[in-house]
Amino acid sequence: MRAVDIIIKKRDKQELSTEEINFFIQGYTKGDIPDYQAAAWAMAVLLNGMNPRETTDLTLAMAYSGDVLDLSGVVDIALDKHSTGGVGDKTTLVVLPMVVAAGVPVGKMSGRGLGFSGGTLDKMESIPGYRTNLTTEEFLTQLKEVGIVLTGQSADLAPADGKLYALRDVTGTVPSIPLIASSIMSKKIAAGAQGIVLDVKIGLGAFMQTLESARELAELMVDIAARAGRRAIALLSDMNQPLGYAVGNALEVKEAIETLHNRGPADFREHCLKVAAHMLILGGKAQNEAQGRELAEKTLADGSAWEEFRKLVQAQGGDVRYIDQPERLPAARLQEPLKAPQSGYMAQIHARLVGEAAVILGAGREKKGDPIDHAVGIVVHKKVGEPVEAGEPVFTIHANDPAKLAEAQQMLQEAIKISPTPVEPLPHFYGVIGE
Amino acid sequence: MRAVDIIIKKRDKQELSTEEINFFIQGYTKGDIPDYQAAAWAMAVLLNGMNPRETTDLTLAMAYSGDVLDLSGVVDIALDKHSTGGVGDKTTLVVLPMVVAAGVPVGKMSGRGLGFSGGTLDKMESIPGYRTNLTTEEFLTQLKEVGIVLTGQSADLAPADGKLYALRDVTGTVPSIPLIASSIMSKKIAAGAQGIVLDVKIGLGAFMQTLESARELAELMVDIAARAGRRAIALLSDMNQPLGYAVGNALEVKEAIETLHNRGPADFREHCLKVAAHMLILGGKAQNEAQGRELAEKTLADGSAWEEFRKLVQAQGGDVRYIDQPERLPAARLQEPLKAPQSGYMAQIHARLVGEAAVILGAGREKKGDPIDHAVGIVVHKKVGEPVEAGEPVFTIHANDPAKLAEAQQMLQEAIKISPTPVEPLPHFYGVIGE
Repeated sequence: MRAVDIIIKKRDKQELSTEEINFFIQGYTKGDIPDYQAAAWAMAVLLNGMNPRETTDLTLAMAYSGDVLDLSGVVDIALDKHSTGGVGDKTTLVVLPMVVAAGVPVGKMSGRGLGFSGGTLDKMESIPGYRTNLTTEEFLTQLKEVGIVLTGQSADLAPADGKLYALRDVTGTVPSIPLIASSIMSKKIAAGAQGIVLDVKIGLGAFMQTLESARELAELMVDIAARAGRRAIALLSDMNQPLGYAVGNALEVKEAIETLHNRGPADFREHCLKVAAHMLILGGKAQNEAQGRELAEKTLADGSAWEEFRKLVQAQGGDVRYIDQPERLPAARLQEPLKAPQSGYMAQIHARLVGEAAVILGAGREKKGDPIDHAVGIVVHKKVGEPVEAGEPVFTIHANDPAKLAEAQQMLQEAIKISPTPVEPLPHFYGVIGE
Repeated sequence: MRAVDIIIKKRDKQELSTEEINFFIQGYTKGDIPDYQAAAWAMAVLLNGMNPRETTDLTLAMAYSGDVLDLSGVVDIALDKHSTGGVGDKTTLVVLPMVVAAGVPVGKMSGRGLGFSGGTLDKMESIPGYRTNLTTEEFLTQLKEVGIVLTGQSADLAPADGKLYALRDVTGTVPSIPLIASSIMSKKIAAGAQGIVLDVKIGLGAFMQTLESARELAELMVDIAARAGRRAIALLSDMNQPLGYAVGNALEVKEAIETLHNRGPADFREHCLKVAAHMLILGGKAQNEAQGRELAEKTLADGSAWEEFRKLVQAQGGDVRYIDQPERLPAARLQEPLKAPQSGYMAQIHARLVGEAAVILGAGREKKGDPIDHAVGIVVHKKVGEPVEAGEPVFTIHANDPAKLAEAQQMLQEAIKISPTPVEPLPHFYGVIGE
């Protein structure tokens, strides 16, 4: 078997066999197949597609390119969730404690933010002392003894995906639905997941801009899970405007804590309840969404979800005084409102521009490895559809640098549209796949 | 400007600007743009195409990636010819002396054979002493003083093309008409050509399998020449069966010498006359094909073409005793006929299989740098359409190794088809473009 023949086959729109996909991914992982052949192959896949069977083979080849965690001795069912990324998406911080409080232990590996899209690890690191670099052994021990873990991906999981993703990033081969689906699912499978809730975001602040493409991605991932002997449920959720109000690391932790205290923004709470309900279905604690939702609501109302969050922070070395008194969390020196230029109805709060303004302030990173400022960010005061009066604050900008503040102000002015006539609120969800 | 954005633009089927193409090719030549980005870009070009303006820009960017010869001080008009490659194609050996004898000095750089397709340099090296590695200075001096040169491409010409071609070979991105056209034309332009006759082969033993694709390639190259301020004429010629009778280096030199002595196979003689006639049109010696043909025929009849060939061999260090008495040229130890299994009419002599059988015998190379055996090869005794009797020799196989002989025999048996009913001869030409 030769790599060039596999490239030619895909170039000519033919289906690759399981053996060919395994040969290519194993060869690429070992370095026998060079980057330039993988780049040509990835472009051919992007332009000519792969069917679900090929995509599942690719997923499994990448998952098994390194270690695959086996959590069967530690938990009854290994649950996971994944968000395709968005602005203000602090869902894991609330959902994980809820699900654990409802009786299903969860050990989860999360990622960092890149570009306009935030990352769970960066948010958790707003809490002084919190460790996101647990070893596999620490992960397993904590999952067994504490029942809740939230840490970074260990380097040995799906190394083929890590290598291929870095290559796709510089060769214009990121936006391929089969490549995106296999990248996500390979990491979940390598992390040992048996049941996965996929939060597929759609809209201005998401990688998927249209409902059609998001649905295609979601259906493919649910199909891959089934073909790989796992179960996945995908939620199609809105990411035209930020989720909740807070965008920026410590600001989002504060909002998550509020939500865990049975308060918090209505849209974000709704989002967390839906994700948690579906995780509880996969975890065997609920027969349907209504039951799962009831269980999840109870963990907010009785404080048990909050207790699990506190246990998590403590177990991973975080200083709980900062979450018990969230006003201690990093705060920015400058807090400037951005006021509505006219009265009317909020017609758009462009999630991507808000995310990019947060990156400018220092809350996110342009490229991997850039340092971030946990204190800065943006608080949004309105949701699309709400009435707004001229001069009323639409955003509060939290900044540590006046020049960056000015730049963010300008960008945020462009992020909003106010309509003189009433505007429908945006939906939270567009559908569920694989229920 | 970023390489990845140029890849993305082509991935998304957009037209690249002149600046973008120059940036990409200059960056790739210098090594600032890595192979993996060039590979993804080449696959995007192959699958999404380039228009003639982009292809011309690519051609010029590659031509000017290294030295560009200026022959204006040495010859009135710099003529060149190019064949897209085939089996038994020794045309240059005859055409070059004819055109020079008709009054237009020509300095030509040729290539080596690869795979089933032979190369002019390998053929000339059958003549002991013949040098194919002239320096640029030697090239210019000989062109000025002798009026005829036939040597290898100096390493400094179109280095971007050399680098990109090697990459395309291992990334499945060879068969792209814009990439093929720009590769050919960039080398011709770098070699200083102002008028170029392109011999575009079609059929079983050609890179272009269909008349449509050959015509597309030919039209594109003629268009590129015009856009780049040169003039090209493209001939569409048959390569379903080998050209002439001889396939293999010394065997082809002997056939070329026969032809220069105003004998030789009718189809090959016809081919050379047509190519030479069009070179003479471009060289300003003929108004039309008929005039050019008459001039060219005269050089065969009066021995002047043969004299030019002799001058060429002598100028480049070749031992003229070997061409004066071609029976001195390398000859194979084993000469075995392959007989017709039945009577009928020759319906197919599969040029590619004949070429591959010659490679097996040692006449060609599987990969760059492999040594070759100048003595071995195949002589074809029939043309498609000719009657054939059972037991009559169809091929004579010239071999130096019995095992390779046996292997070639088997392959050649599969190369022929004999029909019980009469078969039309194959045309020599399918059209002329740019006349």
